[in-house]
Amino acid sequence: MTYLDHAATTPMLPEAAAALTGALSTVGNASSLHTSGRRARRAVEEARESIAASLGARPSEVVFTSGGTEADNLAIKGVHWGRRGKKRLLIGAIEHHAVLDAADWLGEHAGAEVTFLEVDDFGRVHDDTMRAAIAENPDDVSLVSVMWANNEVGTVNPVRELAETCAEFGIPFHTDAVQAVGSLPVDFAHSNASALTVSGHKVGGPYGVGALLLGRDVACVPLAHGGGQERDVRSGTLDVPAIVALAAAIRVATAERAERALELEQLRDELVRRVLAAVPGAVLNGDPGQTHMDGGPSRLPGNAHLSFPGCEGDSLLMLLDARGIECSTGSACTAGVAQPSHVLLGMGVDPKPARGSLRFSLGHTSTRSDVDALAAAIGPVVERAQNAGLAGLRRGEF
Amino acid sequence: MTYLDHAATTPMLPEAAAALTGALSTVGNASSLHTSGRRARRAVEEARESIAASLGARPSEVVFTSGGTEADNLAIKGVHWGRRGKKRLLIGAIEHHAVLDAADWLGEHAGAEVTFLEVDDFGRVHDDTMRAAIAENPDDVSLVSVMWANNEVGTVNPVRELAETCAEFGIPFHTDAVQAVGSLPVDFAHSNASALTVSGHKVGGPYGVGALLLGRDVACVPLAHGGGQERDVRSGTLDVPAIVALAAAIRVATAERAERALELEQLRDELVRRVLAAVPGAVLNGDPGQTHMDGGPSRLPGNAHLSFPGCEGDSLLMLLDARGIECSTGSACTAGVAQPSHVLLGMGVDPKPARGSLRFSLGHTSTRSDVDALAAAIGPVVERAQNAGLAGLRRGEF
Repeated sequence: MTYLDHAATTPMLPEAAAALTGALSTVGNASSLHTSGRRARRAVEEARESIAASLGARPSEVVFTSGGTEADNLAIKGVHWGRRGKKRLLIGAIEHHAVLDAADWLGEHAGAEVTFLEVDDFGRVHDDTMRAAIAENPDDVSLVSVMWANNEVGTVNPVRELAETCAEFGIPFHTDAVQAVGSLPVDFAHSNASALTVSGHKVGGPYGVGALLLGRDVACVPLAHGGGQERDVRSGTLDVPAIVALAAAIRVATAERAERALELEQLRDELVRRVLAAVPGAVLNGDPGQTHMDGGPSRLPGNAHLSFPGCEGDSLLMLLDARGIECSTGSACTAGVAQPSHVLLGMGVDPKPARGSLRFSLGHTSTRSDVDALAAAIGPVVERAQNAGLAGLRRGEF
Repeated sequence: MTYLDHAATTPMLPEAAAALTGALSTVGNASSLHTSGRRARRAVEEARESIAASLGARPSEVVFTSGGTEADNLAIKGVHWGRRGKKRLLIGAIEHHAVLDAADWLGEHAGAEVTFLEVDDFGRVHDDTMRAAIAENPDDVSLVSVMWANNEVGTVNPVRELAETCAEFGIPFHTDAVQAVGSLPVDFAHSNASALTVSGHKVGGPYGVGALLLGRDVACVPLAHGGGQERDVRSGTLDVPAIVALAAAIRVATAERAERALELEQLRDELVRRVLAAVPGAVLNGDPGQTHMDGGPSRLPGNAHLSFPGCEGDSLLMLLDARGIECSTGSACTAGVAQPSHVLLGMGVDPKPARGSLRFSLGHTSTRSDVDALAAAIGPVVERAQNAGLAGLRRGEF
């Protein structure tokens, strides 16, 4: 099987799997005062310190959550509510739905005004765009949220520049770094962000765990009330085995990042080259990835996103799947949705080619033979999908 | 080590641990359309069917969450918001903080009016009490929430009776059944509840996973926005290994429940008898557990909760811990908090004896030797704690 969908979820790193299974047999609620409880608490606090060290944060800035979606929701709603009286949210136009939909909900149900920050043809938010939006009424902006790197097309944003501008105005800046951690050099302190989202299963850790890095001076209203386990910002029994495994995954992924990113970039570039050679009409979407930003590439090293004119993305996906090659048409979270991706539309891609797009995402188990398999299959698959499209056209289906 | 804190968290059942580790090595986001994704989705849907069958629900009524706290928050806030215009929440006075604090937050920040339903000396909400509260303005009640069994003193509520009364008035009824599942006969359809909270790690499953059983006609506004994975009520990538393990735990725990409950009751009764024999001044709190309700006992079979006059609960806990016996003073979620338990105060226990209380909770790994160990230790431990208390009294510390 050729797995080219690491951006949807990537297999657990062996170190993370070992940490998880090792912790499963221990018992003890990390809030309990007895020996088992204190042992569990110690494991959690060591994990917190390890994650902080890996990501340039202070341990007290690590708030564990059930994953990226909860962390995004907590940042958007919690920080917005923490800025009582401020109404305006500025949100990147091609954010993940966990950010977009959380902001939309605030707009529809809680009196917020959401402004979407336009992106360029690569999918990048420019500081000028954000500054112009802030300038409309700087005192009324509750927060700005722009993702570190886009989950569909892999475009990296100038996070540090945006965060510094926000800091000028005293506005909290959140960034969804779910795709960035382990792929790009992510340093919370250096980034100047107020809040940063991390997900376990995108970085080689388990599902069901993530973190919000949250500056100590950033007010944040909790979404989940109860025991008040995480700085009173997040309640719920701490998932000790998952947290320990998350720390292991982040430690390995960040330690090996530079070397692995270089390998992935080369592999990805070869993938793109060979797909374009096999399907001359195909178009690479997003940033060409030849420049660098903040010490990292301008595009996620493992990301390739291509449009295949005259094809439906879902047909391509299924035809490739039948040949043992797994990829996606966009975000897994909205897989099966018939609309073209909001990311491509936001970048100015026309709806029709947008629907004929595939994301190939490489990760820590990817090898040259995966690229070979795709290069061999993509030509015939596209031809078949185009013929199906033409046949549909002739039958008047479009 | 003598672990008498199963109500805080109980070790994973071997079947659940096997299911979890078995699922760890598979890859595939359950929202992905390719073969791996569809395989993951199938595992989730089989788990959903299994849990539904174990708990008398329909598969479509199982909404997976990150645990009990999230499920309680979703029920309280989501169902309240789903009843647009209705302002009054009726909440049992000794609910878990995940319910109480969620309701309080609605009261403080979202214009809700929270009425706490008084409990009797055993900690039980009576139908009359609830009816009287509803009668004040039946049309303005958004929901009622009363736990199936209390987490500290183990008292079982007449859930079915309460739910039927609510149904008379067309009011949704939520019950936190975190402590009940696996210990009492929990059947969602038979209970007549509109929503029911389940937690993984209290039933022999993993941390970080739970479910809200939610009637299909019950409107519920989501708290976590994003991919819309669970009926659009809850977003976030599904934690496939944890969900599969949760299903295994619930299957085993409910299948073995009747037999295990009988064993636990006998063991618990012996524990209480022997502690009272060793410490004649000690008092058992909560329901004596000699009657039956809805086909189950009137007190959680594994729960013993005792007050030790003249002692501080934390001192007792630490002295027992030093002898290798682990228990708690109340809910693990609020361990370390100096205030006496809101549960005991709600039941009319005076603050002073309330602070000198311990919860011993038995579970699937408990044996007679655990009871022997406690029976041997409790006398000397209480004596020492009382002397410490007297010494403090002489030094004017109280």
